[in-house]
Amino acid sequence: MNYADRLQAQLDARGNPCLVGIDPHLEYLPREFEAARDTRLPRAQRARVLADFCCEVIDVVAPRVAVVKPQSAFFEVFGADGAVAWERVVRAAHAANLLVIGDVKRGDIASTAAAYATAFLEGVAGDDRASLCDAVTLNPFLGQDSLDPFLQVCARSGTGIYVLVRTSNKGSADFQRHGEPELSQVIARRVEQWGAALLGECGLSSVGAVVGATHGAELRMFRESMPHTPLLLPGYGAQGASARDIVDAFVPRASRMPCGAIVNSSRGITFAWREREYAHLHWKDATSAALDKMIAEINAALSAHR
Amino acid sequence: MNYADRLQAQLDARGNPCLVGIDPHLEYLPREFEAARDTRLPRAQRARVLADFCCEVIDVVAPRVAVVKPQSAFFEVFGADGAVAWERVVRAAHAANLLVIGDVKRGDIASTAAAYATAFLEGVAGDDRASLCDAVTLNPFLGQDSLDPFLQVCARSGTGIYVLVRTSNKGSADFQRHGEPELSQVIARRVEQWGAALLGECGLSSVGAVVGATHGAELRMFRESMPHTPLLLPGYGAQGASARDIVDAFVPRASRMPCGAIVNSSRGITFAWREREYAHLHWKDATSAALDKMIAEINAALSAHR
Repeated sequence: MNYADRLQAQLDARGNPCLVGIDPHLEYLPREFEAARDTRLPRAQRARVLADFCCEVIDVVAPRVAVVKPQSAFFEVFGADGAVAWERVVRAAHAANLLVIGDVKRGDIASTAAAYATAFLEGVAGDDRASLCDAVTLNPFLGQDSLDPFLQVCARSGTGIYVLVRTSNKGSADFQRHGEPELSQVIARRVEQWGAALLGECGLSSVGAVVGATHGAELRMFRESMPHTPLLLPGYGAQGASARDIVDAFVPRASRMPCGAIVNSSRGITFAWREREYAHLHWKDATSAALDKMIAEINAALSAHR
Repeated sequence: MNYADRLQAQLDARGNPCLVGIDPHLEYLPREFEAARDTRLPRAQRARVLADFCCEVIDVVAPRVAVVKPQSAFFEVFGADGAVAWERVVRAAHAANLLVIGDVKRGDIASTAAAYATAFLEGVAGDDRASLCDAVTLNPFLGQDSLDPFLQVCARSGTGIYVLVRTSNKGSADFQRHGEPELSQVIARRVEQWGAALLGECGLSSVGAVVGATHGAELRMFRESMPHTPLLLPGYGAQGASARDIVDAFVPRASRMPCGAIVNSSRGITFAWREREYAHLHWKDATSAALDKMIAEINAALSAHR
């Protein structure tokens, strides 16, 4: 089944477009997981504790969101032990009926890109398919021939990709805004073209784009230049974007919530216990409360926009 | 010790600027490693055989070259088992007195980039430092703040980075040539600036650039816009660039071989046994002969250029 359709069905079932980014920064882990920071312990044990935390996050958020987005860098810090932890977390997310967007931002020449597509989306025959992702984030810097192998795998396996178009960080302006038209605009048009072959019945493609919610004024423009492209919006919460900032990224639908975008929060949810607002709560209750608040804020903004 | 100086010392000791890319495509492995392709075998066993092949390649090439560049994608196809294989191969390369450039092409927002720098260059305290790389390739699409954490780690740990400036594939023109001046030129100037704080006694920086040898006419321009930046040149051999194409990437030195660039060949060396020229040889002898030929060709071109 087409990834865009799978995603839309799951979003409609949950009734909100929020996703939780799982970025397990060692230094922010709650105290009960401090063993992950303990340099006297074996790396494998530390990586296991990291995965324990991620799996508990999944338990807390799974009933309310459609998607989680683990960030591979925070697993890779533990090398091969981190890779074991990554697979356990992806399996746990699938077991909890979540879609998984692997935030891996890979990008390489075609033969290498094909290997990455195998690694994250299709698997080598005979391996544990539950540890594969439903979609991954990709870096388009190497051009179309670096994306083609992923498009082929997406068509074969009902998976998706999110191409970086305009990232949420300040430095994104350095190169993504280069030229006239700006590079991000050029990439956006190509993303929409690449997606044409992977349209789902929902009218959206399995080829998505990452567009930072921190660039509010540009969202409407990206929505217009990529009418069939689902947008993944980082930057909400800890990075400063508000619910009002993101409504322009959505596509209106008759008598239903707008569609076409998913809104990510990572630290703002998983490390909510560090915020004064939630400091009196156990970390799980803080995470739960922060997620409830995000869902309410975003759905309210979308309702007002409808 | 500064990475640029470590690299230059090793290159001078070996007397050639060649490096061997270790891209273990499953389908190209010699028959004695066909177990890596056997989907009936457990993934861990297949990954072990993949690493066996890479370690034998290292044995063959280590006496003659200064550097190897394993490509992480071909390990990641085996998930966590591939990560174990990756670490074994990096350790084997170090044990053979080779420098290791991890071809990982990562690029992400700052907090995530810091995790990648830890993962590949600095390690978490207490882990096996022999499995870390001396340098990594990085994708600059996210801008300067995505590179800064690496620059800090390079300064602390005597490691290096190679920033993608103009890649060797055809599709690289899609976005890297966008704008006026072309994006690659803009990135090149920034790379030279980033490198200023990491200059070695050899006069070159630990901040390098990846520039495809397949764009011969542009090499001289990149050499001029990045006078202190060591260049990593993919594209020689299987991708079509010749020894003549690459001489403009080097910096002349009084009474010694030119410096400032390293030339990569991957398939052309490790899978030389597949070429008609070497088909009569055992794969190791084919690899050895292809490497000898590459070294001779490149050194001859550099001598003529001197």
